[in-house]
Order: sequence, then C-alpha cells, then structure tokens
Amino acid sequence: MNERLKKQVDFILELDKMKNLYRQTYVLHENRKENDAEHSWHIAIMAFMLAEYSNEPVDVFHVVKMLLLHDVVEIDAGDTYCYDKNGYKTKADREEKAARRIFGLLPDDQRDEYYALWREFEDSETPEARFAAVLDRMQPLFLNYTKNGISWQEHEVYKEQVLERNRSYFSVSDEIADAIKAVINDAYDKGWLK
Amino acid sequence: MNERLKKQVDFILELDKMKNLYRQTYVLHENRKENDAEHSWHIAIMAFMLAEYSNEPVDVFHVVKMLLLHDVVEIDAGDTYCYDKNGYKTKADREEKAARRIFGLLPDDQRDEYYALWREFEDSETPEARFAAVLDRMQPLFLNYTKNGISWQEHEVYKEQVLERNRSYFSVSDEIADAIKAVINDAYDKGWLK
Repeated sequence: MNERLKKQVDFILELDKMKNLYRQTYVLHENRKENDAEHSWHIAIMAFMLAEYSNEPVDVFHVVKMLLLHDVVEIDAGDTYCYDKNGYKTKADREEKAARRIFGLLPDDQRDEYYALWREFEDSETPEARFAAVLDRMQPLFLNYTKNGISWQEHEVYKEQVLERNRSYFSVSDEIADAIKAVINDAYDKGWLK
Repeated sequence: MNERLKKQVDFILELDKMKNLYRQTYVLHENRKENDAEHSWHIAIMAFMLAEYSNEPVDVFHVVKMLLLHDVVEIDAGDTYCYDKNGYKTKADREEKAARRIFGLLPDDQRDEYYALWREFEDSETPEARFAAVLDRMQPLFLNYTKNGISWQEHEVYKEQVLERNRSYFSVSDEIADAIKAVINDAYDKGWLK
C-alpha cells in the first residue's frame, strides 16, 4: 500500500471508535443509547432529505460531509451532554486537541480539509454549518420525543433549556423550527419536560 | 407539520431500525457485530476520502447518498450474509418488496429518487454504483482483517470465496484492488482464510 493510502486506512480504522461512543439519546428499538456513528449516519441522510427547508441556499454535500465528520473529535474528547454546564467549560479545549490528533492521521491535504469542516461546524456561522446544527439538534429531539421523553426525564430537563438550546437556530428553517417547537410544547404538555 | 414533512419524519423514524440490524462483521472495540447504520456511515466517509482512487471519474455526492441508503431495504429483508448461497436465492425478491414499502413512506419525488439510487446500486453498472460496491466490500474486509479474521473463521470462509466476491470490482480502482488483494493474501498466509 502506498504511504498516502496507508494513512487513509489508519484514519478509517481509527473512526471505528465512533461505534462505541454512546450519547444520551436512546435508539428506538433497543434498550440502549445511540452511538456517534449511528447518529452521524442518521443526520447525514436528513441533510439531503430536508435541505429543501433551509431558508438560505446551502451546498448540501458540504453539509453532509460536515455531519459525517462533526463528532469524530469525541473519540478523544468524549461526548459532552448538551445540558452539562461543567462539561461545556472544557469542551472546546478537549475537542481542539482531539481534532489535531485525529485529523492529523491523514495526508496533509485531507487533514486540513476535514479539520476545516469540523472548525466550520463548531463556529456555526456559515449557512451550511447552521443548517447542519439544526439537524444535529432535531434528530435527538425527535428520537427522544418518540421514546416518551426518556432522556429528558432521566436528566430532569426543563422545557426552557430545550428551547434555549434550539432558539438561535429557528431562523435556519421555518418549517423545521415549527416542527421542533411543536414537539417541545407537546412534550411539556405530556409532562416529559419540566 | 405539513403533510410532506410528516412523511419525511415518518421515514426518518423508520430508519432507526437500521441501528439494530446486525451484520456478520464485528466492530473493532466491542465484542459485538456491526449494525447497518454504523456500516453505512463508515463507507460514506470512505467514499469522499478515497474517491481519488476511482479509475473512472465519479459524482462523489451521488456515491455518498447511494451508500447512506443502500442497506435500508434490510429493515424488511434482513441482512443476507455474502457467503450464504440459499439466502441469495430469495434476496432480490425480498429486497425489491422492502424497497417499495420503505421508500414508499416518502413524498413521491423522494420515493422515486431514493428507490432509483438503491436500484442503481443493486444493478452495479454505473461507475458510481461500482465504486460504491468496492467500498461496501473493502470496509468489512479491513475490519475483519484488523480483528484477526474473526468472521471468516466463524464461517470457515475460503480465500477463493473472498477473491471471487471482490474480483469483478478490481477494475474499479487499481490502488484499492491492490490493497484488497494484499489483505486477502496476508489473511490466507496467517491461516484466517482457508
């Protein structure tokens, strides 16, 4: 194998660790949490299926690549639950270090390209990054809602926390924002959110 | 939620079943088999990372979409192990029926688009479908090799069977074909293939 392909294969094998990085969301049909690989697959499909609802035009393939790779840093940095205030204090540092090591396994051009995709997602300023972010929030919300709010109940999450986490992305898509708000309100009415 | 988005959400939730459809390949860092969601995520990244090795030019986003969706039919049809001769007799019928039901959850335009992507993958005639197919074979091969040939040993697979399964795709990419051949030969030398 040439040196370039060898580095790419090393990265591919390193990615396997995403399959045992468990998030706080449950899968629907087993009694276990979802892992980062499954989550990333799910939202990548949502990206091209729901791109029509983006208020601004987006480069859909760019969004898909960003979503497929956005959680790779958790291989070193771990999953930080979105309502964990202490975890969030150190999240940026931990993930920056992780991004440098993990994307650093690749040939230089791909290292730079994928690092930039990850950075763009984290900075959440481009239309692509913001559309990616709304899907990254929408997917666990819908899974959790479909599973009777199980992880909100486990963590005693307040309706206002969920709204706060999603509010700044409501301008990304009117239709998705309406769907998210409807789910949050109904979960509150059902007593799954405090 | 409007009628169109409701159908799309129904499809998104249906997809969750991919997370408990287990294949014959093992994940590297847990003692369990890989599921279809994880596998599809892994090869979608490989598609844009390794597209440079395709002997023919390919529409990479098309390949990525095809790979993200190609196993969705297994929700109804189940996973057919690639060396299961009896399973292969009924595979096409079972999967056709599954594709009609599952993609049928979507709005008509997306139903037709995704059904066509799946059909294209199965027919394996376009450069995109053939490049997708080589990745679909390469990924379990490399995982299995990295895990000391565990699923080949469980199923008592012969070197010639693995070569046979891959041979018609060697023309898709010289570099990937060389890598696959090297792995098969080494697995045989190590006694992991009969």
